[in-house]
Amino acid sequence: MQLTRVGLPVESCRPMSDSQHPTVQGFSFAATSCGIKRDGQLDLGLIVADDEVSVAGMFTKNRVKAPPVTVSMQRVERGRTRAIVVNSGNANACTGKKGVEDVKVITSIVADELGVADDKVLMASTGVIGEPLPSERIEEALPELVRSARPDRIDEFSRAIMTTDRWPKVSSIKFPIGQDKLVTVLGIAKGAGMVHPDLATTLAFVMTDAPMHSSFLARALGTAVDKTFNRMSVDGCTSTNDCVLAMSSSAVDAEPLRGSDRDARRFIDALVDVLGELGKRIVQDGEGAKHVVRLEVVGAPSEDAAVKVAEQVARSTLVKSALWGRDPNWGRIMAAAGMAGVAFDPLKVEIKFGKVAVCKKGVAVGRDAEDEARRVMSEPSYRITMKLGPGKAKATYLFCDINDDYLRLNASYRS
Amino acid sequence: MQLTRVGLPVESCRPMSDSQHPTVQGFSFAATSCGIKRDGQLDLGLIVADDEVSVAGMFTKNRVKAPPVTVSMQRVERGRTRAIVVNSGNANACTGKKGVEDVKVITSIVADELGVADDKVLMASTGVIGEPLPSERIEEALPELVRSARPDRIDEFSRAIMTTDRWPKVSSIKFPIGQDKLVTVLGIAKGAGMVHPDLATTLAFVMTDAPMHSSFLARALGTAVDKTFNRMSVDGCTSTNDCVLAMSSSAVDAEPLRGSDRDARRFIDALVDVLGELGKRIVQDGEGAKHVVRLEVVGAPSEDAAVKVAEQVARSTLVKSALWGRDPNWGRIMAAAGMAGVAFDPLKVEIKFGKVAVCKKGVAVGRDAEDEARRVMSEPSYRITMKLGPGKAKATYLFCDINDDYLRLNASYRS
Repeated sequence: MQLTRVGLPVESCRPMSDSQHPTVQGFSFAATSCGIKRDGQLDLGLIVADDEVSVAGMFTKNRVKAPPVTVSMQRVERGRTRAIVVNSGNANACTGKKGVEDVKVITSIVADELGVADDKVLMASTGVIGEPLPSERIEEALPELVRSARPDRIDEFSRAIMTTDRWPKVSSIKFPIGQDKLVTVLGIAKGAGMVHPDLATTLAFVMTDAPMHSSFLARALGTAVDKTFNRMSVDGCTSTNDCVLAMSSSAVDAEPLRGSDRDARRFIDALVDVLGELGKRIVQDGEGAKHVVRLEVVGAPSEDAAVKVAEQVARSTLVKSALWGRDPNWGRIMAAAGMAGVAFDPLKVEIKFGKVAVCKKGVAVGRDAEDEARRVMSEPSYRITMKLGPGKAKATYLFCDINDDYLRLNASYRS
Repeated sequence: MQLTRVGLPVESCRPMSDSQHPTVQGFSFAATSCGIKRDGQLDLGLIVADDEVSVAGMFTKNRVKAPPVTVSMQRVERGRTRAIVVNSGNANACTGKKGVEDVKVITSIVADELGVADDKVLMASTGVIGEPLPSERIEEALPELVRSARPDRIDEFSRAIMTTDRWPKVSSIKFPIGQDKLVTVLGIAKGAGMVHPDLATTLAFVMTDAPMHSSFLARALGTAVDKTFNRMSVDGCTSTNDCVLAMSSSAVDAEPLRGSDRDARRFIDALVDVLGELGKRIVQDGEGAKHVVRLEVVGAPSEDAAVKVAEQVARSTLVKSALWGRDPNWGRIMAAAGMAGVAFDPLKVEIKFGKVAVCKKGVAVGRDAEDEARRVMSEPSYRITMKLGPGKAKATYLFCDINDDYLRLNASYRS
């Protein structure tokens, strides 16, 4: 869905570039190389709050959940946390009882260092599935990791959580609440490229100093994820380790956000902005992706119907192959849409690549239009619009092409 | 599901090779080149019965149905037909009112030639979507096509319906019913390669001389398709044009098959054999497929659950990439299975490549086992077994790898 800005002046809502990301009151970051990855690459990170903070999380719906997910899910329920340990290079998934034990030992070491109860520390992991975690290396590195945390080590942390990512993903926003108190929302993510279904893990962490209880944070996070991470081809896609964790230090002195008043809406908008920006970077960094496509399904009978159609199109290997080949093969889009279980009249469909309509009233516009569309498809990013009919609902979905680089990467990921 | 043979002696149930396919009493075939495809390739075929016959059909569930599908669906409902015209090279899909008109004109010309009502002729098409059918070329070729039909022109017909197929697909079986009356089931299919979702059209035609009414034929066809075509990666996959049509001339003089007596069960088994064989050839001929894999999901709480898990694994681009890379990456199989919405305990899962277990009780067996599994994965076809738990239900699913040949073919299919 295209978001409607509610009350938030656009100029106060400026996304920052990666080199400018601001610190967030109440949070510090750390990163180190403990030997899970080769060649001394950063592979262990920590987010630590000055004190207990509100926390909310969303976790993979996959039936096969990795131990860091099952343990953290339970601990997030209480709504308060102090720190999150994150490792890359190993997902600690399908690792049985040892995997659970590893998470408990690692988080308890961090908890001891901080002088808090074990359940105030969370864990997230990403990397290869089915290999035992080299937990001793992690355990040895933890005390120094905790001590080295600083508010501005954001960049190092963002690099420590990468797997096949080509670049780190950070996004932030500042905006005023209450009587002109400036608050910050900072997001850090990793998302191994993509190509639709089930693919690699997406991890995202959001920190804010805006004041709120965990119940509001949980609701805001749910709304924002639904409009961003759940509308990209990296969704659908539930890995064993996906999670999005949000924390609020409430360090800014103002009324706690609640309900749907102006400030609450501003915060949700900001969260959508930050997660949307992270999502876009994840798709752009798709494993070998050459084209990032914003698919807009409009004229749908309901938003849910629009999302279902968009998902089927974004999942279609045939559509994704055509994107790679710059072939405006709208028939494949039509056929994929027809699999969504949504009622529409094919004879009312219009399909555009950029501004070029290639299909009107369900039939081909002609060769000239397709030649023009081919030019649009040469761009690294463009829009495809599919008008289903006279309905008023719509949805936007981000996805990308599938190409031989993706296949090569995934055929040999573990080798 | 593995089929249990019911009363049908295996030796009486011998599949034939393509060069041996027998004629079926009451049916003739024809094929010609009318200029839809280039270079004089066969592109128009006809199956014609000596007289009206029982007919049953199964059609794509896609919301976007091509005109030959919508017209034939309606006509099949009456249970009787005389002929089927099939063209390749153009799917006559997303072609609006002209597309429907074309089907009506073409079938009425055949009906006139045969001296029957228009609705006694069906049509099926496969090829590019969204291009108007060159109907005049077809119309001109029809009278001669009807006149040239002969019982043994099976091979020519099977070639005329090919699109990206590398070889024609024919399968047949003979078995006795009643007092030792030998009946024949002949199947002819085309199925552009593969890779799972939505891909190219599957068309299949089944002819038999076993006596039956269309109500029994419809039930038998539904049962057999459910166990064969609905259990391959070419399913899931609903193109705009998919259809399976079965006809019985009832030329063999015996009691009409009905209910679930011995002969009825034999016929259904034979249908499963013929369609299963065609299905295997379709997957083998997958667009560039290097490995055909028989996935067996066992130990499931229900057959439905086993099918759901198998479908998710067979749809996973990550699993399919790993097959191409000969990487026994069982973690991806586990993660894909976890998306099926089926309850299972990951700690009870066992995964085998051929006879080599690489995952037991949800965790890795070790490097040696994976090296052995890699050898299994070098074969052009092999089996993957996933044991979900202590359940008694199971399902078998055919699928294949995704590789760069597939992508190249589909990136440039229309160019």
